[in-house]
Amino acid sequence: MYRERGVEGRFPEGRPMRLLLAAGGTETAAIEGISAAGVDREAMRHTPSADAEILVYGEVVRAPVVPVSPSGCPTPAVVTRAVRELLAFEVSVVDTGLFAPTAAPTVDVGASPGADVREPEAVPEASALFERARELGRTLPEDRLVLAETIPGGTTTALGVLAALGERETVSSSLPDNPIDRKRSVVADGLAASGLERGGAAADPERAVRLMGDPVQATLAGLAVGATEAGTTVVLAGGTQLLAVAALARHAGVEGTLPLATTAYVAADPSVALADAAADLDVDLTVTDPGFDDSDHPSMARFAAGEAKEGVGMGGVLALAERAGVEATAVREGVGQVYDRLFDGPKSERSPVDSDYS
Amino acid sequence: MYRERGVEGRFPEGRPMRLLLAAGGTETAAIEGISAAGVDREAMRHTPSADAEILVYGEVVRAPVVPVSPSGCPTPAVVTRAVRELLAFEVSVVDTGLFAPTAAPTVDVGASPGADVREPEAVPEASALFERARELGRTLPEDRLVLAETIPGGTTTALGVLAALGERETVSSSLPDNPIDRKRSVVADGLAASGLERGGAAADPERAVRLMGDPVQATLAGLAVGATEAGTTVVLAGGTQLLAVAALARHAGVEGTLPLATTAYVAADPSVALADAAADLDVDLTVTDPGFDDSDHPSMARFAAGEAKEGVGMGGVLALAERAGVEATAVREGVGQVYDRLFDGPKSERSPVDSDYS
Repeated sequence: MYRERGVEGRFPEGRPMRLLLAAGGTETAAIEGISAAGVDREAMRHTPSADAEILVYGEVVRAPVVPVSPSGCPTPAVVTRAVRELLAFEVSVVDTGLFAPTAAPTVDVGASPGADVREPEAVPEASALFERARELGRTLPEDRLVLAETIPGGTTTALGVLAALGERETVSSSLPDNPIDRKRSVVADGLAASGLERGGAAADPERAVRLMGDPVQATLAGLAVGATEAGTTVVLAGGTQLLAVAALARHAGVEGTLPLATTAYVAADPSVALADAAADLDVDLTVTDPGFDDSDHPSMARFAAGEAKEGVGMGGVLALAERAGVEATAVREGVGQVYDRLFDGPKSERSPVDSDYS
Repeated sequence: MYRERGVEGRFPEGRPMRLLLAAGGTETAAIEGISAAGVDREAMRHTPSADAEILVYGEVVRAPVVPVSPSGCPTPAVVTRAVRELLAFEVSVVDTGLFAPTAAPTVDVGASPGADVREPEAVPEASALFERARELGRTLPEDRLVLAETIPGGTTTALGVLAALGERETVSSSLPDNPIDRKRSVVADGLAASGLERGGAAADPERAVRLMGDPVQATLAGLAVGATEAGTTVVLAGGTQLLAVAALARHAGVEGTLPLATTAYVAADPSVALADAAADLDVDLTVTDPGFDDSDHPSMARFAAGEAKEGVGMGGVLALAERAGVEATAVREGVGQVYDRLFDGPKSERSPVDSDYS
């Protein structure tokens, strides 16, 4: 299969797959209290650009920061890159409104960073993005597309879209203590500014994103719809942000199987009704525990303590690794190596700067 | 090594490598008689975008054409993709002034398509491109960077740069019969319009590109200089267009080894003094013959007849395959498979359109 179908053919059943990382920004992330206290706003704007570089190159290249939370939890991109080095799957990063330049190659869908959800329109170009992504999803040749995200503030826009669609309003957080009340307040302000009732965009998912979402959602929803139309298997690799994408896809008419693969950390988040939300949307849930609490490497301790939880397709690729028969110890070893390389790499002389990534 | 250093670690000596494809455009390609007679100018503008997609996805995705010469010779991207499916090396496409959109992820260095070399300035942004690429070349983490190009009209701009630098003016062609007199006439007009004598930019390679080159050259020269500064091995994967890049790198002060790997078709081109030009620039020449004349598959017949000859890193990856111990029969089998998939792929319903690629 490998020689017949492409470099990624060794993956699980030998069918080619590609991870599509939607990397973008929204001004929603700059709202006080949404992101971790003490995080430098400018550094946070570089996080998706840095995540893309880590996924593609295994190091930051053009980005000035290695994304790390205030308490020292590295970006989940470290985990995704580690699994990529084990499984050698292909990736394409889609620029879904990056604030900062990246050395990673990106697919251009004409996206700009999203506005604050408290503005009347959060993603004015939502319909155009959705359509361009739908066409891309229809035409990409792989048998399986794994959809992932990196966008600070993304759980708040997820909450916004779930509210606009009238779905169960439950989202996770990269913070140990989910500022869910703050998010609900922001979403309430956003609904008011948009002149939208809860569920008011249930029949029009593009409008839900336009008024209350972010450009990552518009793009991932379009990709999911287009790929499904072409008979391509779609895997949603992420937590509640990808649940919001599932909701958009369902409201756009996607029927049939819609698998979502996330981490045990999202599933264990007491502020999230993950199984209920998945059941609402008829999403097949896969939860993978990488056993980071069995490691004493500094890269994994903060994950084991429930920080970060998800992002950059972490839960999805952990599931892929498990299905491919990769031992969890090998994944953990890889995570440690990628982390060490990020901070001690021969060409990377950058210092870690505090940053937030969800 | 594979698990230690990355997905491309299996390549030859187990050291990670990346192919950087500079994909761009120049108005020079639209000059009558430079490109193959009967080629549609609009289709040609899509060739680099389509080449990028073939390299990354193994199929055209967003591009409306599969690049094929008037006589039916497919783009060399088919060969490079076939080798990639065998060796699984990583690629980044750099947008060095694409005329048309592409679904391939591309690195942004801020390039625009180049002007006609008969204009006073062919690449007004040459210095900025060179510097951005130099920084990228300095910071990319791989041990080895393989530099490749796809730009219609590129042998004419190569001739322009060689003239501006005062180097031996010898270039190849994708056409069976090199329109070298036409190219020389265009370059003479360009030198006059730029107020430049032969060799007048020998001390200033960025000026040579600005007045007489194309954005692909500015970017690849910058990458070569930056990578060399960082101790990264650079391989120039191509024919006389990459020789022009070697000349720019030498005039920019690059010393030490500079390998250039091309095909037997360029070496056999009676209009090119390849070995002499390589010796002038102290370039270590590797010539690989894929033995396409041993195949009766339609994808290889026109190559065997001396068309196309080079492009999209073809000669470079053929050398990599040989060094990796891949049998030439396996390469040819792969070329046939990629070609068949391009024209019969399940999601590709596009017809081949005549196009030119050098």
